[in-house]
Amino acid sequence: MRILVIGGNAAGLTAASRARRLDSSCSVTVLEASERIAYSICGLPFAISGHLSGFENLVIFTPERLRNERGIEALVNRRAIEVVPGRKRVVAENTITGEQQSHLYDKLLIATGYRPRSLPVEGMKSRGVFTASRLGDGEAILAWLSRRAARRAVLVGGGYVGLEMAEALAARGLHVTLVEASDRVFPALDPDMAKYVEEALAKNGVRVMTGRRVKRLTSNRDGAVEAVELEPGSLRLPADIVFVDVGVLPEVDLATEAGIALGPTGAIAVSDQMETSVSSIYAAGNCVETRHLVTGRPVSMPLGTVAAKQGRIAGENLVGRRSRFEGALGTTIVRVFDVAAARTGLGAEEAGREGFSCLTSTITGRFRAYYFDTGASATVKVIAERGSGRLLGAQIVGSSEGTIRIDVVAAAISGGLTVREASQLDLAYAPPLGALWNPLLVAMNQLLREL
Amino acid sequence: MRILVIGGNAAGLTAASRARRLDSSCSVTVLEASERIAYSICGLPFAISGHLSGFENLVIFTPERLRNERGIEALVNRRAIEVVPGRKRVVAENTITGEQQSHLYDKLLIATGYRPRSLPVEGMKSRGVFTASRLGDGEAILAWLSRRAARRAVLVGGGYVGLEMAEALAARGLHVTLVEASDRVFPALDPDMAKYVEEALAKNGVRVMTGRRVKRLTSNRDGAVEAVELEPGSLRLPADIVFVDVGVLPEVDLATEAGIALGPTGAIAVSDQMETSVSSIYAAGNCVETRHLVTGRPVSMPLGTVAAKQGRIAGENLVGRRSRFEGALGTTIVRVFDVAAARTGLGAEEAGREGFSCLTSTITGRFRAYYFDTGASATVKVIAERGSGRLLGAQIVGSSEGTIRIDVVAAAISGGLTVREASQLDLAYAPPLGALWNPLLVAMNQLLREL
Repeated sequence: MRILVIGGNAAGLTAASRARRLDSSCSVTVLEASERIAYSICGLPFAISGHLSGFENLVIFTPERLRNERGIEALVNRRAIEVVPGRKRVVAENTITGEQQSHLYDKLLIATGYRPRSLPVEGMKSRGVFTASRLGDGEAILAWLSRRAARRAVLVGGGYVGLEMAEALAARGLHVTLVEASDRVFPALDPDMAKYVEEALAKNGVRVMTGRRVKRLTSNRDGAVEAVELEPGSLRLPADIVFVDVGVLPEVDLATEAGIALGPTGAIAVSDQMETSVSSIYAAGNCVETRHLVTGRPVSMPLGTVAAKQGRIAGENLVGRRSRFEGALGTTIVRVFDVAAARTGLGAEEAGREGFSCLTSTITGRFRAYYFDTGASATVKVIAERGSGRLLGAQIVGSSEGTIRIDVVAAAISGGLTVREASQLDLAYAPPLGALWNPLLVAMNQLLREL
Repeated sequence: MRILVIGGNAAGLTAASRARRLDSSCSVTVLEASERIAYSICGLPFAISGHLSGFENLVIFTPERLRNERGIEALVNRRAIEVVPGRKRVVAENTITGEQQSHLYDKLLIATGYRPRSLPVEGMKSRGVFTASRLGDGEAILAWLSRRAARRAVLVGGGYVGLEMAEALAARGLHVTLVEASDRVFPALDPDMAKYVEEALAKNGVRVMTGRRVKRLTSNRDGAVEAVELEPGSLRLPADIVFVDVGVLPEVDLATEAGIALGPTGAIAVSDQMETSVSSIYAAGNCVETRHLVTGRPVSMPLGTVAAKQGRIAGENLVGRRSRFEGALGTTIVRVFDVAAARTGLGAEEAGREGFSCLTSTITGRFRAYYFDTGASATVKVIAERGSGRLLGAQIVGSSEGTIRIDVVAAAISGGLTVREASQLDLAYAPPLGALWNPLLVAMNQLLREL
């Protein structure tokens, strides 16, 4: 059996590996449009900052290793340009030579991922304006910083990549301004929680400008970006480099042209077995919709963790199993300077938009005994449905060790716990590692009073 | 309404505070046999080690503060010596003056806690032999170490207090030998996991002797302990100080004499509303039985976290609410030198004893991206029921930041998740704070193959 996979990262390669592992009799070929497979794009800011000595450190598998160790044929610089379901064929173009070649499949997996959303403004084509979706983007950023001897950076978009890039560029000594169109950075947090992240940025010298949009980018006679003009108002921010992270779009063109149905979010609609609307074609990762475990509704959730899990499930189904992907909670975490921030499920704002009447409680507590508290505190917000008490989400901002407890709430939500049940979770305590009353429990108990 | 509480620590004071908070019209009196209330006995080893400058740092509330801030009357050095349910009266003795006084109640809470189990061997009364159940024990240990200029310590019992004391005494420069009757230290772990704890002890100069019992203690002419003799064999360990931690017993004498029923474990039997068999008398904390959330059976689970939660529930019911305590998982964590160890639910051995046919998987993984891995790895063992795939327990040994993830499994077990469901938990990832494949998920996925 021939399995063909389009896309050589989290979803695609996890699926390829899983399929080969379960059925070594199948042939698995992966088409990857860029020059590398299997890299940690999430690590890009840390190669920019200098924490990593080079981008090669982010590459987990080369095509050679993948062939030798897993028996998977990965072809890089091969952009799939057409899927022909009737003939079970994919046409790919060699992005270097321009040659086209057809690949036949018995089962196809589309794992084309995302592309960065662009800004619909003048000047976006200036040199020195970057997004990040491939390791090559990082290399280009580093090269530009050095060639331009850049001193001033403007980052557009305060999502987690923007936040990590702000720290990375500040670590390189640049003056960094972060511009965000909404009323807060890391808009995945509720405003009351996002303010702690803004404080961390400000404390570390990053200027934050919220509620401003980019009007245009201007460039010098060489076409190099020179400034970012904002609106409302007439502020002009000089910039030697501009980094844009205003969200991502599912990469669905190939699927659409093949007649594969999209869902309401504009991403590829898939069953819980990761099947598309077209026979023998599966899809997984950032190009597909994911069922939100709280609302039950399909959402676009472009996260590596979700992509990898979907890839694993897709890989199993490609070789005839009937594995199901239940959905996800949009759990995310980010560290910016000395503050970490995490969220899972629905925030209060989001819950309102989704039609829930919700209650929240927010407390700041220590995640160790007070006599071992060396910066282990964090602020915890929990969100529950009024009446039923069903846990809908949580957000944590503060110490890293406090913030990673978001996973405890993620597990509690997956288990369908109410706040009352969650208030009695048997969490671990020892003075150097935990608190007698874990702040999660304190937050749950406080919320109980409201119900 | 008069509420009387016997016992001024986790369960008793949490109940007292909760009751007063919900109903400030009631009078609340607490009788405490020792000289202090509201201290963190779990912190004792850290005052011995020198991490804390003194035992007073472990005292959270004085009677004065409790009276002023919460309106609770706490009487120290008052040992309750008789409960007379027919007259709703408790007789207490002043441990200093010997005076007796009666206290009337409308509702009574028994929170008498535990007492250390003793060793049934000769020489236990020698000076220099200690257990730890009160802060005063810690003060006595420190005084003895100094007076005796102690160099050699023998610790009997490898539970978590014994482990913490081993580190504390080693930190003070003593040569420490830890003797454990069973085949391993921290017997709450399965043997394959406990071995990592033994390695950490050995690496840090603590001699571990498992499978040996204490035959007798010998003392010099002044009655000071001199050596510990072991069996089988004829080993004699010279000792300037001996610390015994071979488990605890629920302190139930007062309850028994009042006609209150005990459960099968020998601890006080309580309803899920913390009611005893006698009208108007509640009990909570280490003197009562707790429902194990996996087996559904009553167990004795002498943990501060459980005591505090039971106290809270008891406090609510003392003033007429109908709150229920669901039970617990026996989640525990300990740090010894540079290794942390945690467990929740049932271990494989325990599951077998409880009649489960179980499957396990054990993996070692990183809890951050590999390029941020500075000692963040840990070994994870998950235990599930064969067939149903129901998650029964987990154990983690390794880095602190890996080990505290035990709480995620505790939440998953409380939610009744199967291994399949738990393998899809949406856990947080960012390179400095988490791994794309959280080792918990890797362990779950590995276990899935066995089911």
